[in-house]
Amino acid sequence: MPENSKFTSPNQAQPPFFVGLDLGGTAVKAGVVDDLGRSLSWLSVPTETEKGPENAAQRMGNAALEAVRQAGLEPSAVVRVGLASPGILDIVNGKLVEIVNFKGWNGFPLRDRVAVHCGLPVTFANDANAAAYGEFWVGAGRDFNSMVLLTLGTGIGCGIIIGDLVIAGENSLGGECGHIIIDYAENARMCGCGHRGHLEAYASATAVIKRTRELLDSGRSSSLNRRLAAGEELTPKLVAQEAGAGDALSLEIVAETARYLAVGIVSLMHTIDPSGVLLAGAMTFDGQGTPLGERFLGWIKEEVVRRCFAVLAPKTAIDFASLGGDAGYIGAAGMARLDYRKLTHAM
Amino acid sequence: MPENSKFTSPNQAQPPFFVGLDLGGTAVKAGVVDDLGRSLSWLSVPTETEKGPENAAQRMGNAALEAVRQAGLEPSAVVRVGLASPGILDIVNGKLVEIVNFKGWNGFPLRDRVAVHCGLPVTFANDANAAAYGEFWVGAGRDFNSMVLLTLGTGIGCGIIIGDLVIAGENSLGGECGHIIIDYAENARMCGCGHRGHLEAYASATAVIKRTRELLDSGRSSSLNRRLAAGEELTPKLVAQEAGAGDALSLEIVAETARYLAVGIVSLMHTIDPSGVLLAGAMTFDGQGTPLGERFLGWIKEEVVRRCFAVLAPKTAIDFASLGGDAGYIGAAGMARLDYRKLTHAM
Repeated sequence: MPENSKFTSPNQAQPPFFVGLDLGGTAVKAGVVDDLGRSLSWLSVPTETEKGPENAAQRMGNAALEAVRQAGLEPSAVVRVGLASPGILDIVNGKLVEIVNFKGWNGFPLRDRVAVHCGLPVTFANDANAAAYGEFWVGAGRDFNSMVLLTLGTGIGCGIIIGDLVIAGENSLGGECGHIIIDYAENARMCGCGHRGHLEAYASATAVIKRTRELLDSGRSSSLNRRLAAGEELTPKLVAQEAGAGDALSLEIVAETARYLAVGIVSLMHTIDPSGVLLAGAMTFDGQGTPLGERFLGWIKEEVVRRCFAVLAPKTAIDFASLGGDAGYIGAAGMARLDYRKLTHAM
Repeated sequence: MPENSKFTSPNQAQPPFFVGLDLGGTAVKAGVVDDLGRSLSWLSVPTETEKGPENAAQRMGNAALEAVRQAGLEPSAVVRVGLASPGILDIVNGKLVEIVNFKGWNGFPLRDRVAVHCGLPVTFANDANAAAYGEFWVGAGRDFNSMVLLTLGTGIGCGIIIGDLVIAGENSLGGECGHIIIDYAENARMCGCGHRGHLEAYASATAVIKRTRELLDSGRSSSLNRRLAAGEELTPKLVAQEAGAGDALSLEIVAETARYLAVGIVSLMHTIDPSGVLLAGAMTFDGQGTPLGERFLGWIKEEVVRRCFAVLAPKTAIDFASLGGDAGYIGAAGMARLDYRKLTHAM
């Protein structure tokens, strides 16, 4: 059963149609979306990076066409494909510049090869930006005029949308807000990117594990010690479980993470002044609308109010994203729609 | 003699024409600008805030019409006015929300009252955003696709331009980047806005004076002490003069200011990924293209390279702005032009 199970049937759907492709390290998602952002079909195929980019591009093209078939549509009903990719991209030229863990993929002209294999024009986008556009179009940001999405995982992804503009950046590096500096000090925490003081170095899953380990190593008592002694791995999920069970150290880690995030959010509010800021990803502790997730969001909001311009505090929404893992392909389809409308002078 | 002395004559100018108004605490600038961003005339009238906003709105309307007369044009040749204002604005409704040092002006519908007094439709803008658009349109940013302007004065003003979009913000507070947080610590420096850790609290003129005073009070020797003993006031200009003369403490202050600014610039590069970042204002030490100004810019660039993504370092321009005090009225006229073109479907 696909994650997004509320499918629209072809005869209720609003043409034209778009395919969204979301490339990940282990799987590619492909889905058909109508002009109102409703999904008609959805499927997933393995990425199999080791088979090389041309092989993957072919299977991505096939997946797009298979999604169209599963939606009960002819390929001619689809006007454009949106392709979301991780890594450092060259969006203008449709190429992968540097894509970690995809051996031999750097420099590959992914956009145009996928276009050849599915026979449709392709819009190329950063995956975090596509997810942000998905939330903006039909997700938790659908009533916003502008928004920032922060995706909390191993790193911190980010996308910024203003009206119908996705901030792609002059060098395809717009919205890399995991790498804004929240501590200018020379001894600030080291980020995975090799620079110091970045938000990601304080509030990503990687950072949460590191900070928790530091507290445990300092001799603080915690119910985490029992679980680690039983051979379990230290993960944000483990910290979340113990925080939910009332462990003081784990709760402190979650609360501190909320404060760091709030610092980054305030900088983004004072830069973009968006309608709202949305949080996505496993690190939101919101898997099932958990009490911890709600507390985490509450702590973030409190710290934002304490630090932002007073006039902004009551006016800027801060909430969880709503599309989960579907945001990428839906947003990619939405960005294909934006390009289609520009090219056909419909906006 | 107006600052911008390179006037275009009416018969060489490209219609349609726009008037830019730039409201400041002591003076209002009014200038006529052609469709290519060239000035045809320029004048200044005192703001006289104490006479109240309606009186000022009337004189601003008259100043606009006088600028048109001095340009050798009929009012009918002008299609729209751009009005740049300091303070917290309600851009959508054309009102002043909170404008410090303008007693009794809060809440005044400035846009529509100026429109009544000059008989032309008015585009309303934040002054820092208008200055940024001016630099983007015809100044040092004229070859950029996107840019950030930082204006270093008593505070730090900022404007962000992406394509033809000026980031005005959901609550007219877009581009308030003097208030991004560069130090999350509870004891970080206090900003004039009442919050801690903001860029402005480290790198504005106010901050430079405070940081210099702290070093002097700590007993450090400096040639500044002689000048202060002679009754001179501690100002960034005084610090700049002594830095230029080789005073170690003053040079340290200038270099530290460059480093703080670089931290803010890197956060903006990782958020917006603009073509370039421009610096304006007295605090750039660039009054006459001074050697100190060049060294200051060099230090900023060095620290940016040390802290930003390696792929961005060679690609993002960092330079001084070029329009000086003319950026505001030219940019306001340019934003009026954007609105005019949208309203007439010319873009």
